[in-house]
Amino acid sequence: MANRTYTVAVAGATGAVGETMLRLLEERNFPVRRLKLLASERSTGKSLTFKGEEIKVERLDDGSFQGIDIALFSAGATRSQEFAPAAVKAGAVVIDNSSAFRMQSDVPLVIPEINPDAIAGYQARGIIANPNCTTIVMLMPLKPLHDYGRVRRVIVSSYQAVSGAGAKGIEELRRQTLAWARGEPIEVSAFPQQIAFNLIPHIDTFQPNGYTKEELKLVFETRKILGDESIGVSPTTVRVPVFTAHSVSMNVETERKIGVDRAKELLSKMPGLVVIDEPEAGRYPMPIFAAGKDDCFVGRIREDLTNDHALNLWVVGDQLRKGAALNAIQIAELLVDRYL
Amino acid sequence: MANRTYTVAVAGATGAVGETMLRLLEERNFPVRRLKLLASERSTGKSLTFKGEEIKVERLDDGSFQGIDIALFSAGATRSQEFAPAAVKAGAVVIDNSSAFRMQSDVPLVIPEINPDAIAGYQARGIIANPNCTTIVMLMPLKPLHDYGRVRRVIVSSYQAVSGAGAKGIEELRRQTLAWARGEPIEVSAFPQQIAFNLIPHIDTFQPNGYTKEELKLVFETRKILGDESIGVSPTTVRVPVFTAHSVSMNVETERKIGVDRAKELLSKMPGLVVIDEPEAGRYPMPIFAAGKDDCFVGRIREDLTNDHALNLWVVGDQLRKGAALNAIQIAELLVDRYL
Repeated sequence: MANRTYTVAVAGATGAVGETMLRLLEERNFPVRRLKLLASERSTGKSLTFKGEEIKVERLDDGSFQGIDIALFSAGATRSQEFAPAAVKAGAVVIDNSSAFRMQSDVPLVIPEINPDAIAGYQARGIIANPNCTTIVMLMPLKPLHDYGRVRRVIVSSYQAVSGAGAKGIEELRRQTLAWARGEPIEVSAFPQQIAFNLIPHIDTFQPNGYTKEELKLVFETRKILGDESIGVSPTTVRVPVFTAHSVSMNVETERKIGVDRAKELLSKMPGLVVIDEPEAGRYPMPIFAAGKDDCFVGRIREDLTNDHALNLWVVGDQLRKGAALNAIQIAELLVDRYL
Repeated sequence: MANRTYTVAVAGATGAVGETMLRLLEERNFPVRRLKLLASERSTGKSLTFKGEEIKVERLDDGSFQGIDIALFSAGATRSQEFAPAAVKAGAVVIDNSSAFRMQSDVPLVIPEINPDAIAGYQARGIIANPNCTTIVMLMPLKPLHDYGRVRRVIVSSYQAVSGAGAKGIEELRRQTLAWARGEPIEVSAFPQQIAFNLIPHIDTFQPNGYTKEELKLVFETRKILGDESIGVSPTTVRVPVFTAHSVSMNVETERKIGVDRAKELLSKMPGLVVIDEPEAGRYPMPIFAAGKDDCFVGRIREDLTNDHALNLWVVGDQLRKGAALNAIQIAELLVDRYL
């Protein structure tokens, strides 16, 4: 396959994740023969640049996928549900960034550093699902701790950037902050409440048990990706006025005691994860530092003062990169490397 | 004591907490006969308004407290250590907002809604300590849950406003945000890192066990105020780009199972605490809503999916009011009501 090249479609190309996918396909020199950019009616006619070439954005429809090898979807769950079947029917493998197929038993849910072999399951449906952005950031450090000590329970509070709501989320924080700076009234549209200088403990819709869908994604996706239905996750997700990197504060309880030194050793060997934990020198992970980077960052690694089989961690990762576009492109790389 | 009035000094009068103390002494019609405003050299000569009168700010020194009944200190731990003894010697009762005396066994640490009777201990040293701002916000809901179910373990992640660093913290977020809006470089001075559009998992100094002093305050102050050394607290404190209200995400494990319905009932009876928990109607506590209010707010009350003896809560309270100035004034009210 060394010199094979692929026809790639990006559905949702004009969104924040879609545009990051384009940048990553360039940066990582993915073997693209032809790139097709797809979006809803509203964005067709726009052009985007790929390797110095202008490519026109075309309207996403059932006929979009003729001759496509790999279809990267990031246009929301509704569009994935509507158009992924047509892409598969046309012969493409779909890598879907939405929540539409993640929990379906015949669709693999993959973080390449964690469960690369799960990708084999793509042949059942022709679809591979990309996990939720916060799930990915949270699992990068959980995986090596789970392999060593078997994770029993995770209590996680998130600090999620506005990019998680796409380009309109980024624009909303920008607009609200500028309105504040000019002394103008602040208008709310992308989020349920003002996000500038505020916190919103509400991401995705509420379920009857009081948790949001976003929170339950952390529970169920964690179990599926780590392949262990006995892991308990107790989540609280919160939107914060930060542009593009998600952070989580996690308490991780394991069956086997790990301890700080061993944890640092395990975490520092995890591909795609960097330990930054020299707090007295002012070095710990932060969103403004993680934004634009491919790696996730973990620090503030401490033994839980109340349970010697638990650790506290602080993890930060770019939501658009490892939390979304990068993970999808890594899945595509794995796919062409092993199967196409 | 009905008609008695008191001479009151505010040390640190020009700070964010000091100015809020003045507003609260007015709002609550505290029986002030004479008000003395004290600050460091830098602020002397300034004037502040109290009940329509201009009062000059005087230099804080050992001679400042002659004839003072109640000295409210909010000028930092160093100044409290330096000048509180002189205030006590001059006959004043000191109510100290700093961390200087909080953990001393002969100094009461008081939240009036929680442990009002502890105030009696003030006679030993003439000092009453006001708890850390995040401790107060966290304990307002913990108290009724502890009384009912005995709290065993709290895993808490904070989302702390810049006002926790005083007027200079507020000014730093304002200045950095305006610089961003104008496309100018962002300068860092009050916090160890940029706070605009960022999160800083670093409040107060780091200790050898990897926790910050701020985090350990939550551990030790909780035990002292609730009078139970067996309560475990596992804390992570984070500064967020919010102006004046602190938020905490807490997982609370109790000996006796409480459940959501009972928890709501217990929490709604707690004075100074308001339950806002109609998430499907978009009603949950948020910093922009809590800022400027005296009450603390709790919502997102959920049973922990991993432990039926634990609950997840989201709590928000104005850091300058209940987290600092209001609690201090409430202590003063209790003091004059019971002892002076």
